[in-house]
Amino acid sequence: MLVRAFVPAHITAFFVPVFHDDPLKTGSLGAGINLTKGTNVFVSIETGTLERHIHVAFNGEPVKRENAVISYSVAERLVPEGFIGEVEIWQYFDFPNGYGFGNSAGGALGTALTLSYRFGGTWLRAAQIAHEAEVRHRGGLGDVIAQLAGGIEVRVKAGGPGIGVVDNLFFGDYKVLVVPLGKLSTREVLDGDVVKAIEAEGSKALEKLLAEPTPERMMALAREFAEKTGLLSGELLELARELDKVISTPSSMIMLGKGLFALVRGEEVESAKRLLTDLGVPYDVTEIYEGKPKVGRWFEGDAK
Amino acid sequence: MLVRAFVPAHITAFFVPVFHDDPLKTGSLGAGINLTKGTNVFVSIETGTLERHIHVAFNGEPVKRENAVISYSVAERLVPEGFIGEVEIWQYFDFPNGYGFGNSAGGALGTALTLSYRFGGTWLRAAQIAHEAEVRHRGGLGDVIAQLAGGIEVRVKAGGPGIGVVDNLFFGDYKVLVVPLGKLSTREVLDGDVVKAIEAEGSKALEKLLAEPTPERMMALAREFAEKTGLLSGELLELARELDKVISTPSSMIMLGKGLFALVRGEEVESAKRLLTDLGVPYDVTEIYEGKPKVGRWFEGDAK
Repeated sequence: MLVRAFVPAHITAFFVPVFHDDPLKTGSLGAGINLTKGTNVFVSIETGTLERHIHVAFNGEPVKRENAVISYSVAERLVPEGFIGEVEIWQYFDFPNGYGFGNSAGGALGTALTLSYRFGGTWLRAAQIAHEAEVRHRGGLGDVIAQLAGGIEVRVKAGGPGIGVVDNLFFGDYKVLVVPLGKLSTREVLDGDVVKAIEAEGSKALEKLLAEPTPERMMALAREFAEKTGLLSGELLELARELDKVISTPSSMIMLGKGLFALVRGEEVESAKRLLTDLGVPYDVTEIYEGKPKVGRWFEGDAK
Repeated sequence: MLVRAFVPAHITAFFVPVFHDDPLKTGSLGAGINLTKGTNVFVSIETGTLERHIHVAFNGEPVKRENAVISYSVAERLVPEGFIGEVEIWQYFDFPNGYGFGNSAGGALGTALTLSYRFGGTWLRAAQIAHEAEVRHRGGLGDVIAQLAGGIEVRVKAGGPGIGVVDNLFFGDYKVLVVPLGKLSTREVLDGDVVKAIEAEGSKALEKLLAEPTPERMMALAREFAEKTGLLSGELLELARELDKVISTPSSMIMLGKGLFALVRGEEVESAKRLLTDLGVPYDVTEIYEGKPKVGRWFEGDAK
């Protein structure tokens, strides 16, 4: 039986990390956007072998346990101990790993949903296991709960699924322009001195956004956050300023990746594409993904 | 500007009412199913008049304030006091009012979402206002938060949006057969002696479902709940038994309406339809609605 899941890519606009001894009370406040591209997970399960094996592959290539710690830890919790057979977890990512698109959480949540679908469980428990693995192995703090909410999300109470609270903004007909340029280590940023500035600026941004909860305001606050924390600077900031000349809502920095994102609509889409093409910079345009991740059998019983 | 929303119909399988002085802490525990049919709300707003007017219509017919107390109270909170113009709220229901399909919550939530989309606000605040109106005017306790969750939902912590916690079951390729036969007053049932039995049986059912969280188990527990509370009896119980002869998962009673529902798949769908047609009983078959309600402009800026 082949089970698949889709989990949207999630871009964080601004955030406040919240740590706690209990991983389910650890999380983040902040805001972000879910995209119609993201992580697809396919789980293939074969019985009739003599041992219990779990394999994980990223984009078609098997990965070692130490390079997929989060997914393996989720799988170890959800594949019953007494299960004999081969469990293959194939994860495909529409964006590169480490670029700030929530791939790690997408893989964890997609793995948890597909395995729970197959071996038993519920959405909430699957999501909690994915969140805990993310927190313990420092993949991220708020991506799982944000991906569950969909749309343009605002984390108003920190914590994992069932504890944290996520709100959503109304957003009309925007598309999302993304400019993925490279990696930033969430771990290194969260271990550095910048954390104090992130906490102060993130809290301010959240308060201001809730006073005026619109997508345009979110982008302006995201930009303020990115500049004031010093995370957005140098060439990336220059590129953001170039981009802003052809779009009406400020662009901002993908938290945390070396990259930019912006809300675009109408003619701005083509103007922005032209500019980025002229500059020789990679980009993608996606829709905003609404609703929950998807999970189900590859072929339903009554498929046409 | 015309704004529309779709909110799924919601059938409660079993429940435990939870009352509190704070409407946001009032709610229910239990389980239920969201359907691809439900409530469509269209809001039309015209400025250029001299006064602030709010009108509500059900299925194309204007209704008096006292017959749409919940929708009017939601609208009064969300249309700004200083707004001058005509606000028309058109609600269309796929199932009859009072039959246990969550129309009241669907109208409240659809109204709150469309007006928030137009006048400003967020999903969570809109949903909380709808929930509060439902609780205050006793339309229902758990429909709003269940409709926000979609799918087959399990309310594991009582309360309104942002307070209550809703889990979801995995469910494969089931359709939902509904047999809507008449009204039952939620208000009268909740004021009667049966409440004690509902609390006891509902709590037991929830505990058992969480120990074995599958759609089949939910239906078996719903049926046990319906019979043990005495809500399902007489002719309706006889009809449920007839229906059970041609389907594999037990049917149960719509809480709270004079009606039945069942999960069906494959050839069962036609067998059940044949039986109900032979018996001259009205029925409908719908899909399970996954994800959040929808809200947006009737025509998007870049619609094709």
